[in-house]
Amino acid sequence: MIRNSEGKMCVGDCPIRQVLDRFGDKWSILVIELLSHEGKLRFSEIAQTIGDISQKMLTVTLRSLESDGLVIRQFFPEIPPRVEYTLSELGRSLVPHIQQLTSWGQENMEAIKENRRRFEAKQVKG
Amino acid sequence: MIRNSEGKMCVGDCPIRQVLDRFGDKWSILVIELLSHEGKLRFSEIAQTIGDISQKMLTVTLRSLESDGLVIRQFFPEIPPRVEYTLSELGRSLVPHIQQLTSWGQENMEAIKENRRRFEAKQVKG
Repeated sequence: MIRNSEGKMCVGDCPIRQVLDRFGDKWSILVIELLSHEGKLRFSEIAQTIGDISQKMLTVTLRSLESDGLVIRQFFPEIPPRVEYTLSELGRSLVPHIQQLTSWGQENMEAIKENRRRFEAKQVKG
Repeated sequence: MIRNSEGKMCVGDCPIRQVLDRFGDKWSILVIELLSHEGKLRFSEIAQTIGDISQKMLTVTLRSLESDGLVIRQFFPEIPPRVEYTLSELGRSLVPHIQQLTSWGQENMEAIKENRRRFEAKQVKG
Protein backbone atom coordinates (compact mmCIF):
# COMPACT_ATOMS: atom_id res chain seq x y z
CA MET A 1 0.00 0.00 0.00
CA ILE A 2 1.20 3.47 -0.81
CA ARG A 3 1.41 6.11 1.90
CA ASN A 4 2.46 9.70 1.82
CA SER A 5 5.19 11.26 3.96
CA GLU A 6 2.84 11.64 6.96
CA GLY A 7 2.02 7.92 6.90
CA LYS A 8 -1.45 8.59 5.55
CA MET A 9 -2.80 6.13 3.04
CA CYS A 10 -3.60 7.06 -0.51
CA VAL A 11 -3.96 10.80 -0.48
CA GLY A 12 -3.84 12.88 -3.65
CA ASP A 13 -1.75 11.26 -6.32
CA CYS A 14 -1.99 7.71 -4.96
CA PRO A 15 -3.24 5.22 -7.61
CA ILE A 16 -5.89 3.46 -5.53
CA ARG A 17 -7.52 6.78 -4.68
CA GLN A 18 -7.47 7.89 -8.26
CA VAL A 19 -9.05 4.63 -9.41
CA LEU A 20 -11.67 4.81 -6.69
CA ASP A 21 -12.46 8.46 -7.29
CA ARG A 22 -13.11 7.45 -10.86
CA PHE A 23 -14.68 3.99 -10.53
CA GLY A 24 -15.82 4.06 -6.95
CA ASP A 25 -18.89 5.51 -8.59
CA LYS A 26 -21.33 2.84 -9.56
CA TRP A 27 -22.65 4.58 -12.69
CA SER A 28 -19.28 4.50 -14.46
CA ILE A 29 -18.96 0.79 -13.76
CA LEU A 30 -22.52 0.12 -14.96
CA VAL A 31 -21.97 2.07 -18.20
CA ILE A 32 -18.71 0.21 -18.90
CA GLU A 33 -20.38 -3.13 -18.15
CA LEU A 34 -23.31 -2.23 -20.41
CA LEU A 35 -21.15 -1.07 -23.34
CA SER A 36 -19.02 -4.20 -23.03
CA HIS A 37 -22.15 -6.28 -23.67
CA GLU A 38 -23.89 -4.12 -26.23
CA GLY A 39 -20.90 -2.77 -28.18
CA LYS A 40 -22.37 0.49 -29.40
CA LEU A 41 -25.18 2.51 -27.85
CA ARG A 42 -26.89 5.87 -28.11
CA PHE A 43 -27.43 8.08 -25.07
CA SER A 44 -31.14 7.25 -24.89
CA GLU A 45 -30.46 3.52 -25.12
CA ILE A 46 -28.03 3.67 -22.19
CA ALA A 47 -30.50 5.75 -20.16
CA GLN A 48 -33.39 3.38 -20.87
CA THR A 49 -31.41 0.22 -20.13
CA ILE A 50 -30.03 1.42 -16.80
CA GLY A 51 -33.45 2.79 -15.92
CA ASP A 52 -32.86 4.73 -12.73
CA ILE A 53 -30.10 7.14 -13.78
CA SER A 54 -30.98 10.80 -14.30
CA GLN A 55 -30.20 12.46 -17.63
CA LYS A 56 -27.83 14.86 -15.88
CA MET A 57 -25.93 12.09 -14.07
CA LEU A 58 -25.60 10.07 -17.29
CA THR A 59 -24.27 13.15 -19.11
CA VAL A 60 -21.66 13.71 -16.40
CA THR A 61 -20.72 10.01 -16.31
CA LEU A 62 -20.29 9.70 -20.09
CA ARG A 63 -18.31 12.92 -20.21
CA SER A 64 -15.81 11.74 -17.58
CA LEU A 65 -15.51 8.35 -19.23
CA GLU A 66 -14.82 10.11 -22.53
CA SER A 67 -12.35 12.46 -20.87
CA ASP A 68 -10.48 9.50 -19.32
CA GLY A 69 -10.33 7.86 -22.73
CA LEU A 70 -12.36 4.84 -21.66
CA VAL A 71 -15.36 5.61 -23.86
CA ILE A 72 -15.38 6.93 -27.43
CA ARG A 73 -18.12 9.35 -28.43
CA GLN A 74 -18.91 9.39 -32.14
CA PHE A 75 -21.00 12.12 -33.66
CA PHE A 76 -22.83 11.47 -36.95
CA PRO A 77 -24.05 14.70 -38.57
CA GLU A 78 -27.25 13.23 -39.92
CA ILE A 79 -30.79 14.57 -39.65
CA PRO A 80 -31.55 14.14 -36.79
CA PRO A 81 -27.91 14.00 -35.58
CA ARG A 82 -26.84 10.73 -34.02
CA VAL A 83 -24.29 10.17 -31.21
CA GLU A 84 -22.96 6.74 -30.38
CA TYR A 85 -20.83 5.52 -27.52
CA THR A 86 -18.41 2.57 -27.56
CA LEU A 87 -15.62 1.35 -25.27
CA SER A 88 -12.06 2.25 -26.24
CA GLU A 89 -9.29 -0.34 -26.02
CA LEU A 90 -8.40 1.09 -22.59
CA GLY A 91 -12.03 0.79 -21.51
CA ARG A 92 -12.19 -2.81 -22.70
CA SER A 93 -9.06 -3.63 -20.68
CA LEU A 94 -10.95 -2.72 -17.51
CA VAL A 95 -13.89 -5.04 -18.23
CA PRO A 96 -12.40 -8.34 -16.94
CA HIS A 97 -11.63 -6.73 -13.57
CA ILE A 98 -15.15 -5.40 -13.25
CA GLN A 99 -16.53 -8.80 -14.20
CA GLN A 100 -14.44 -10.49 -11.51
CA LEU A 101 -15.94 -8.17 -8.92
CA THR A 102 -19.42 -8.90 -10.25
CA SER A 103 -18.84 -12.67 -10.17
CA TRP A 104 -17.65 -12.40 -6.59
CA GLY A 105 -20.90 -10.58 -5.84
CA GLN A 106 -23.02 -13.22 -7.51
CA GLU A 107 -21.24 -15.99 -5.62
CA ASN A 108 -21.43 -14.28 -2.24
CA MET A 109 -24.62 -12.21 -2.30
CA GLU A 110 -26.66 -14.88 -0.50
CA ALA A 111 -24.09 -15.13 2.30
CA ILE A 112 -24.02 -11.34 2.60
CA LYS A 113 -27.82 -11.14 2.77
CA GLU A 114 -27.87 -13.81 5.46
CA ASN A 115 -25.19 -11.92 7.41
CA ARG A 116 -27.28 -8.74 7.19
CA ARG A 117 -30.37 -10.52 8.49
CA ARG A 118 -28.42 -11.90 11.45
CA PHE A 119 -26.83 -8.53 12.17
CA GLU A 120 -30.20 -6.79 12.18
CA ALA A 121 -31.74 -9.46 14.38
CA LYS A 122 -28.88 -8.99 16.85
CA GLN A 123 -29.41 -5.20 16.86
CA VAL A 124 -33.13 -5.58 17.58
CA LYS A 125 -32.42 -7.90 20.50
CA GLY A 126 -29.91 -5.35 21.81
CA MET B 1 -25.79 -9.27 -18.11
CA ILE B 2 -28.96 -9.67 -16.12
CA ARG B 3 -32.07 -7.74 -17.05
CA ASN B 4 -35.51 -7.60 -15.54
CA SER B 5 -38.76 -8.31 -17.36
CA GLU B 6 -38.89 -4.80 -18.83
CA GLY B 7 -35.44 -5.21 -20.38
CA LYS B 8 -33.89 -2.86 -17.86
CA MET B 9 -30.43 -3.72 -16.63
CA CYS B 10 -29.66 -4.54 -13.07
CA VAL B 11 -32.59 -3.20 -11.12
CA GLY B 12 -33.32 -4.25 -7.56
CA ASP B 13 -32.16 -7.76 -6.83
CA CYS B 14 -29.59 -7.91 -9.62
CA PRO B 15 -26.13 -8.96 -8.34
CA ILE B 16 -24.06 -6.27 -10.06
CA ARG B 17 -26.23 -3.54 -8.56
CA GLN B 18 -26.01 -5.06 -5.13
CA VAL B 19 -22.25 -5.30 -5.34
CA LEU B 20 -21.98 -1.73 -6.61
CA ASP B 21 -24.39 -0.34 -4.05
CA ARG B 22 -22.11 -1.88 -1.48
CA PHE B 23 -18.64 -1.41 -2.97
CA GLY B 24 -19.28 1.32 -5.47
CA ASP B 25 -18.46 3.42 -2.45
CA LYS B 26 -14.78 4.14 -2.23
CA TRP B 27 -14.57 4.16 1.57
CA SER B 28 -15.57 0.51 1.89
CA ILE B 29 -12.93 -0.49 -0.62
CA LEU B 30 -10.28 1.62 1.13
CA VAL B 31 -11.12 0.12 4.53
CA ILE B 32 -10.94 -3.43 3.14
CA GLU B 33 -7.64 -2.66 1.39
CA LEU B 34 -6.25 -1.13 4.59
CA LEU B 35 -7.31 -4.02 6.84
CA SER B 36 -5.89 -6.52 4.35
CA HIS B 37 -2.48 -4.89 4.82
CA GLU B 38 -2.59 -4.11 8.52
CA GLY B 39 -4.49 -7.13 9.82
CA LYS B 40 -6.06 -5.61 12.90
CA LEU B 41 -6.84 -1.94 13.54
CA ARG B 42 -8.68 0.30 15.97
CA PHE B 43 -11.19 2.89 14.79
CA SER B 44 -8.79 5.78 15.41
CA GLU B 45 -5.99 4.02 13.51
CA ILE B 46 -8.23 3.55 10.46
CA ALA B 47 -9.38 7.18 10.65
CA GLN B 48 -5.82 8.49 10.93
CA THR B 49 -4.44 6.33 8.15
CA ILE B 50 -7.14 7.20 5.63
CA GLY B 51 -6.86 10.84 6.69
CA ASP B 52 -9.74 12.52 4.89
CA ILE B 53 -12.72 10.43 6.07
CA SER B 54 -15.12 11.96 8.60
CA GLN B 55 -15.80 10.15 11.87
CA LYS B 56 -19.44 9.76 10.90
CA MET B 57 -18.67 8.31 7.47
CA LEU B 58 -16.18 5.85 8.94
CA THR B 59 -18.73 4.75 11.55
CA VAL B 60 -21.33 4.13 8.81
CA THR B 61 -18.78 2.34 6.59
CA LEU B 62 -17.54 0.02 9.34
CA ARG B 63 -21.07 -0.73 10.43
CA SER B 64 -22.16 -1.80 6.93
CA LEU B 65 -19.03 -3.86 6.46
CA GLU B 66 -19.74 -5.56 9.78
CA SER B 67 -23.39 -6.07 8.84
CA ASP B 68 -22.36 -7.67 5.53
CA GLY B 69 -20.02 -9.99 7.41
CA LEU B 70 -16.89 -8.65 5.67
CA VAL B 71 -15.39 -7.10 8.77
CA ILE B 72 -15.32 -8.47 12.32
CA ARG B 73 -15.64 -6.03 15.21
CA GLN B 74 -14.13 -7.22 18.47
CA PHE B 75 -14.86 -5.48 21.74
CA PHE B 76 -12.41 -5.82 24.63
CA PRO B 77 -13.94 -4.69 27.94
CA GLU B 78 -10.75 -3.19 29.29
CA ILE B 79 -10.24 0.23 30.83
CA PRO B 80 -10.42 2.14 28.58
CA PRO B 81 -12.44 -0.24 26.39
CA ARG B 82 -10.80 -1.29 23.15
CA VAL B 83 -12.45 -2.13 19.82
CA GLU B 84 -10.56 -3.80 17.00
CA TYR B 85 -11.51 -4.47 13.40
CA THR B 86 -10.25 -7.32 11.20
CA LEU B 87 -11.34 -8.81 7.88
CA SER B 88 -13.48 -11.94 7.97
CA GLU B 89 -12.78 -14.83 5.62
CA LEU B 90 -15.47 -13.44 3.29
CA GLY B 91 -13.82 -10.01 3.42
CA ARG B 92 -10.43 -11.52 2.63
CA SER B 93 -11.91 -13.31 -0.40
CA LEU B 94 -12.76 -9.92 -1.91
CA VAL B 95 -9.21 -8.56 -1.55
CA PRO B 96 -7.63 -10.08 -4.71
CA HIS B 97 -10.39 -8.56 -6.87
CA ILE B 98 -9.88 -5.14 -5.34
CA GLN B 99 -6.14 -5.46 -5.84
CA GLN B 100 -6.63 -6.31 -9.52
CA LEU B 101 -8.60 -3.13 -9.97
CA THR B 102 -5.92 -1.16 -8.16
CA SER B 103 -3.15 -2.68 -10.27
CA TRP B 104 -5.08 -1.77 -13.42
CA GLY B 105 -5.24 1.78 -12.06
CA GLN B 106 -1.52 1.91 -11.38
CA GLU B 107 -0.73 0.60 -14.85
CA ASN B 108 -3.10 2.95 -16.65
CA MET B 109 -3.23 6.12 -14.57
CA GLU B 110 -0.63 7.92 -16.71
CA ALA B 111 -2.55 7.14 -19.90
CA ILE B 112 -5.78 8.34 -18.27
CA LYS B 113 -4.16 11.58 -17.11
CA GLU B 114 -2.79 12.19 -20.60
CA ASN B 115 -6.26 11.53 -22.07
CA ARG B 116 -7.77 14.04 -19.64
CA ARG B 117 -5.22 16.70 -20.60
CA ARG B 118 -5.98 16.19 -24.29
CA PHE B 119 -9.73 16.22 -23.70
CA GLU B 120 -9.52 19.47 -21.76
CA ALA B 121 -7.30 21.09 -24.39
CA LYS B 122 -9.85 20.11 -27.05
CA GLN B 123 -12.67 21.66 -24.99
CA VAL B 124 -10.81 24.95 -24.58
CA LYS B 125 -10.15 25.14 -28.32
CA GLY B 126 -13.85 24.51 -28.91
